[in-house]
Amino acid sequence: MLIKNAVLPNKKRADIYIEEKEIVSINGEKNKDDWVIDARGKLVLPSFYNTHTHLAMTLMRGIVEDLVLKDWLEKIVWPMEKHLSREHVYWGSIIGGLELIRSGIAGIADMYFFMDEVAKVLKLLGLRGTLGTTIFDFPSPEAESTDEMLKIAEAFAKDYQNDELITPSIAPHSTYTCSPETLLKVKELADKYGLLIQIHLAETRWEVYEIQKRYGKRPVELLGDIGFLDENVLAAHAVWVTKAEIRTLAKHGVKVVHNPISNMKLASGGAGVMPYPEMKEYGVLVTLGTDGVASNNNFDMFEEMKVMAIAQKNHRWDPTIAKAEEVFKIATENGAKALGLKAGRIEEGYLADLMLIDLNKPHLKPFYDPITLAVYSMRASDVDGLIVNGRPLMLNKEILVVDEAEMLEKAEKKAFELYEKAFS
Amino acid sequence: MLIKNAVLPNKKRADIYIEEKEIVSINGEKNKDDWVIDARGKLVLPSFYNTHTHLAMTLMRGIVEDLVLKDWLEKIVWPMEKHLSREHVYWGSIIGGLELIRSGIAGIADMYFFMDEVAKVLKLLGLRGTLGTTIFDFPSPEAESTDEMLKIAEAFAKDYQNDELITPSIAPHSTYTCSPETLLKVKELADKYGLLIQIHLAETRWEVYEIQKRYGKRPVELLGDIGFLDENVLAAHAVWVTKAEIRTLAKHGVKVVHNPISNMKLASGGAGVMPYPEMKEYGVLVTLGTDGVASNNNFDMFEEMKVMAIAQKNHRWDPTIAKAEEVFKIATENGAKALGLKAGRIEEGYLADLMLIDLNKPHLKPFYDPITLAVYSMRASDVDGLIVNGRPLMLNKEILVVDEAEMLEKAEKKAFELYEKAFS
Repeated sequence: MLIKNAVLPNKKRADIYIEEKEIVSINGEKNKDDWVIDARGKLVLPSFYNTHTHLAMTLMRGIVEDLVLKDWLEKIVWPMEKHLSREHVYWGSIIGGLELIRSGIAGIADMYFFMDEVAKVLKLLGLRGTLGTTIFDFPSPEAESTDEMLKIAEAFAKDYQNDELITPSIAPHSTYTCSPETLLKVKELADKYGLLIQIHLAETRWEVYEIQKRYGKRPVELLGDIGFLDENVLAAHAVWVTKAEIRTLAKHGVKVVHNPISNMKLASGGAGVMPYPEMKEYGVLVTLGTDGVASNNNFDMFEEMKVMAIAQKNHRWDPTIAKAEEVFKIATENGAKALGLKAGRIEEGYLADLMLIDLNKPHLKPFYDPITLAVYSMRASDVDGLIVNGRPLMLNKEILVVDEAEMLEKAEKKAFELYEKAFS
Repeated sequence: MLIKNAVLPNKKRADIYIEEKEIVSINGEKNKDDWVIDARGKLVLPSFYNTHTHLAMTLMRGIVEDLVLKDWLEKIVWPMEKHLSREHVYWGSIIGGLELIRSGIAGIADMYFFMDEVAKVLKLLGLRGTLGTTIFDFPSPEAESTDEMLKIAEAFAKDYQNDELITPSIAPHSTYTCSPETLLKVKELADKYGLLIQIHLAETRWEVYEIQKRYGKRPVELLGDIGFLDENVLAAHAVWVTKAEIRTLAKHGVKVVHNPISNMKLASGGAGVMPYPEMKEYGVLVTLGTDGVASNNNFDMFEEMKVMAIAQKNHRWDPTIAKAEEVFKIATENGAKALGLKAGRIEEGYLADLMLIDLNKPHLKPFYDPITLAVYSMRASDVDGLIVNGRPLMLNKEILVVDEAEMLEKAEKKAFELYEKAFS
């Protein structure tokens, strides 16, 4: 496959050759039988990796807003999750997955329930997923006991051991919903199958107080002390952490997902804008995530990059923090790295995960610098095409892998049905 | 004109009848000769009023980013403004104006130079503008002396006294660039012609220190003491203000424009997120603005609403602050009120300024609540149609008033030409 006449992030025009799932050359030799995508007037960017989501929670998008966390959980999330079936997870993931394609996102790290349904949807749509069954010490929509959840996670790990798009993972919910014993069981399973562990960590001030009360130490300290931390841990949020804790994260090679919009919107992190400058200083790999749309409320990684950049600047009274190039790399290359992918750059030998942007729009004029445009002016709707693993999932704004309108209509019906069950 | 089968913000389906420039009835009697716009599957919302912009600064969008204010002014803005001609302002406003239409913005409050060029563009495109020539105590791209600037502003006020779309205004730049004498001359002119006064006020910590050093009082105190403040003042930013100053603003009926993205991005306001809860408590009319795109970098009022909501929540550790409905009203009805327009609601007797949103998109599913969707999930690119003063400017994503592609191409050339002059 040949993407012809694209504009690269460095503003040079190029022909990009893709074979199977890889970028094999930029401006190399032509083959006569190439399938040609004409990208004249379009910018090609590496696609995004959204490293913290709960895909199926699209079902709860925007029902009620502006509540404190406790009310939001008690009034919306829990009544709906009480009735959540594997069918709902499938259709919620359909809405979410279509939005991912339209937002230029090639892959996600996701934690929720019925992850085999999420896997089914991502494979149908051609997207990558590092998927972890949520584990905690009380019943979930999927299982009655922690042991049962662990079994489900293990079965999933076996089923998807050699999948091209799906990477099994495991997701202990947090230090306040999982006992140290549970966390160590998870770790054992993760070590056995080489799984990435996804966990919510130090998201709220309440969490820090609660863990200190229970164990006499802060959340990161606790995980360090029980031997839980290593380079296979992907920690979401990490807002309320001390410098010593950041050093602990760095020492063990833990990867951190920054979710600025969710943190600000829930305000449960308080003034806690993640200490990005220190993470950078101590060498923590920082990635970017939207969190579930129930606390965002979309999968727009352009918006997430912009909010990260301006929130960090504002918080430290310094506009030179979180520069456009840095933030763009966090959303693309760093995300890929955290998911174990050689991707996130338009270069020979990298996976062919890339998006096309239509530049003929007033808000993208004049065209001075692609990366500052991407971080500060673009939004998800500017994505015109998406190629993942060498396969075009959308071109000229048309979804190629499913009948989008039909899928959305069905999915919305399922969402309303769940709403009726929960609230009538 | 009849907009048929639209979905209203309250989720009811309706036929909206427009005569001349007004909404005359919702679901009223039909006329046979109506021009019908079929809005099936589309949401109709009141349009936005972006109450603080510098439209022509699209010319400088994204050239260099992540600089401290001083570097940004000295390295980018001033070298370019040194060569800024009225032709540049025209073409910069063309880019900006087309972006306004695509972003659902019916009217702006704008302060810059060569405002007759901005007026020409807005009239060509069918948009509303409350336009103020910038006044300060040093030469501008347009005039050598303050007196000359005042004369230009007066001539503009006379020329546009009875225009349907353009409202003359006057724009003393700030307390640190205008002496009290200049401010009072502006006030005199404003009183004579009934002009709205646009001014940057208490934007940065530096400004507060500087004014205190010069006059022994804070910026709002200074303006209060010299008799400058009244209900014709529209103050942009108002970030670094005390409670006493907010009471002064409220007492005099001063309107305030909140520009959260610009404030955060420049970080020159430091941790100064505008004290919105106190503004609300003391009864100040708060509106929303993007500022110029050189410090944003777009005119996306959806994004601006979202950032306002999440930044206010985050800053006060309280997710119930700046609720979706409140923020939406600020961006629509409050903006209209500040500009002296009976608009910002889809109701009989209101001006026919409204936008259509295509709902058939994954990030807008499921469709539970239009207003939370608008504030937290939508973006400017979801705007499918815009009607201003009863005239459709865009329908089905097609700009109806000019040849967009041709205009953008010309405008971009002019931008590059200015760049060459400034930096070669």
